[in-house]
Amino acid sequence: MPWPDRRFTELLKIDHPIVLGPMAGAIDFELAAEVAEAGGLGSIPCAMLDLEHIRDQVTKYRARTSRPLNLNFFCHAAPELSNAREAAWRERLAPYYRELNIDPAAPVPHSNRRPFDQAICDLVLELKPEVASFHFGLPDPTLFEQVKRAGIITFSSATTVAEARWLEQRGVDAIIAQGNEAGGHRGIFLSDDIATQPGTFALVPQIVDAVSVPVIAAGAVTDARGIAAAFMLGASAVQIGTAFLFCPESKISAPYRAALKQARDDGTALTNLMTGRPARGLINRLMRELGPISEAPAFPLAAGAIAPLRAKAEAAGSGEFTPLWSGQAAALGVEMPARALMARLTEQAQALLR
Amino acid sequence: MPWPDRRFTELLKIDHPIVLGPMAGAIDFELAAEVAEAGGLGSIPCAMLDLEHIRDQVTKYRARTSRPLNLNFFCHAAPELSNAREAAWRERLAPYYRELNIDPAAPVPHSNRRPFDQAICDLVLELKPEVASFHFGLPDPTLFEQVKRAGIITFSSATTVAEARWLEQRGVDAIIAQGNEAGGHRGIFLSDDIATQPGTFALVPQIVDAVSVPVIAAGAVTDARGIAAAFMLGASAVQIGTAFLFCPESKISAPYRAALKQARDDGTALTNLMTGRPARGLINRLMRELGPISEAPAFPLAAGAIAPLRAKAEAAGSGEFTPLWSGQAAALGVEMPARALMARLTEQAQALLR
Repeated sequence: MPWPDRRFTELLKIDHPIVLGPMAGAIDFELAAEVAEAGGLGSIPCAMLDLEHIRDQVTKYRARTSRPLNLNFFCHAAPELSNAREAAWRERLAPYYRELNIDPAAPVPHSNRRPFDQAICDLVLELKPEVASFHFGLPDPTLFEQVKRAGIITFSSATTVAEARWLEQRGVDAIIAQGNEAGGHRGIFLSDDIATQPGTFALVPQIVDAVSVPVIAAGAVTDARGIAAAFMLGASAVQIGTAFLFCPESKISAPYRAALKQARDDGTALTNLMTGRPARGLINRLMRELGPISEAPAFPLAAGAIAPLRAKAEAAGSGEFTPLWSGQAAALGVEMPARALMARLTEQAQALLR
Repeated sequence: MPWPDRRFTELLKIDHPIVLGPMAGAIDFELAAEVAEAGGLGSIPCAMLDLEHIRDQVTKYRARTSRPLNLNFFCHAAPELSNAREAAWRERLAPYYRELNIDPAAPVPHSNRRPFDQAICDLVLELKPEVASFHFGLPDPTLFEQVKRAGIITFSSATTVAEARWLEQRGVDAIIAQGNEAGGHRGIFLSDDIATQPGTFALVPQIVDAVSVPVIAAGAVTDARGIAAAFMLGASAVQIGTAFLFCPESKISAPYRAALKQARDDGTALTNLMTGRPARGLINRLMRELGPISEAPAFPLAAGAIAPLRAKAEAAGSGEFTPLWSGQAAALGVEMPARALMARLTEQAQALLR
């Protein structure tokens, strides 16, 4: 049975209008290839990978499947290091360092979230993914033009109608309408006001009315009801993240997986503590005690001083210092292999839409 | 054509599963009767009416239509007056008083939002509306039992799954799942943490899974796409507020109407400044300059000292001190009489669901 809106599936030449949410640090080529083989769009999150690892991931994906591939990149402005903010941040975290027996004076690792630059662009032009998708706006226009001229389909996330219009004017081929319910980093880039971010139910139809490119609904699309509802709101596809974290193919830590299984509808919040930018995650001790929103170094620098705490806590089975990115509908998630989940989602959604 | 889920329409003996959002201060019997005559459930907001006016409104409604009636009440705990908080609040507002040439020392009016009490209960038992609906939880159990024993159908709003379960355990007949996108006061009553409030898209299916009574989806349901999407998410009905503010039968001020016509998806925020409780409205000067969330007297006392500012500003054509309650999808609203709007919504939604 065909989907009611085929603009997206025809653009991508895939069976089902489902994009795997590119969750950096949580999934890799394996889950992406499974989703692709099941007829969706496989996504490899590249924001935390260096060039060599991006190449390796794409090679492994191509060895598993001949279906289209989406490579996802962050395109934030590289931050300026502020010694004062960094010192204040380490001061706030010092009690946790002491509690976990970590030397508060030890150097912290650099955050490895690299914005899309010429070197990455060159690699993308060589690897030729069918899709390049971006978060936090778009790369520098000269880079974006190179991607487009290579015939690569482009997506980016909009958290408001204004952002969707901005992206369409610059030539993206599809827009991810990222509702406030979505897990992980808000793609917000024309504003920093998270108090006014629209929910999925409000955002999707308003973006659909404002742009002519296909709209991919994201944010709390976790089961077949969400897929069917997104189509009713006018979306041409959905992007599903959190639901795939439950798959055995996801690469999340044991404490993260355990927290997801106990997720509640009211158990997440937006926090900037983990990286410096607002992102939705399951509430843990760090968020409860220092935030969830508070002063922190600029993105992605805040993550540096968190890393030792996270590593030590996770080794002891605790996710209290881990970014537990999750949307607001994680409680609808079911544990099953990605291919089975895709079959369940598509069959049930098509039944609802019939 | 029948609706895909008829639990709600059969419970209420109405044609269409659409509840008029009971927007206190913004609508009255006239809009309610029009919605009822068009086959929806007419709602009269009673939270800001005294006993005499409630009786008058019901009499006028009954004279216009023989269809079922929903009377809506607030059931907050009556606040304790804090002289210190009141003084601090008047101090913060003093610059605006001076700017608008109002004596900052003049006594302020009392807020007229009265919680559901025995006197109101007696009147309800006499007036026998088909439905009594509540906001901020439920009234005192002895009062709630009297309403139920009289055979009146009861609704209340849940902003989380926990609240929905709490309401079902106490015997409500239907639950309004109030997503974070909704305009006006959050119904939140088991918590005061607005940072964790789920959006409509996340909340509706999770409440549907948690309770066995019919669920009424609320929050950004503004056009036919929203109605169809709510059904896909598992709702048995929708509650629509903001869309009806555009009708000529609504009783909003000229500045409020003008602000709605210019509404944007990212133009609202939750604020506690207008009444002391968080509510979603179009952002105006008071919200921008003092909030949108800040220290204010307990609900509904904050409204007292706002009233003179609002009155003076509105008289000069300004809504900068008016509570401009609105959901996040006001931009989808269309100006037309309530009966025509009902016809449009139901025909288009049924076409989408076909």
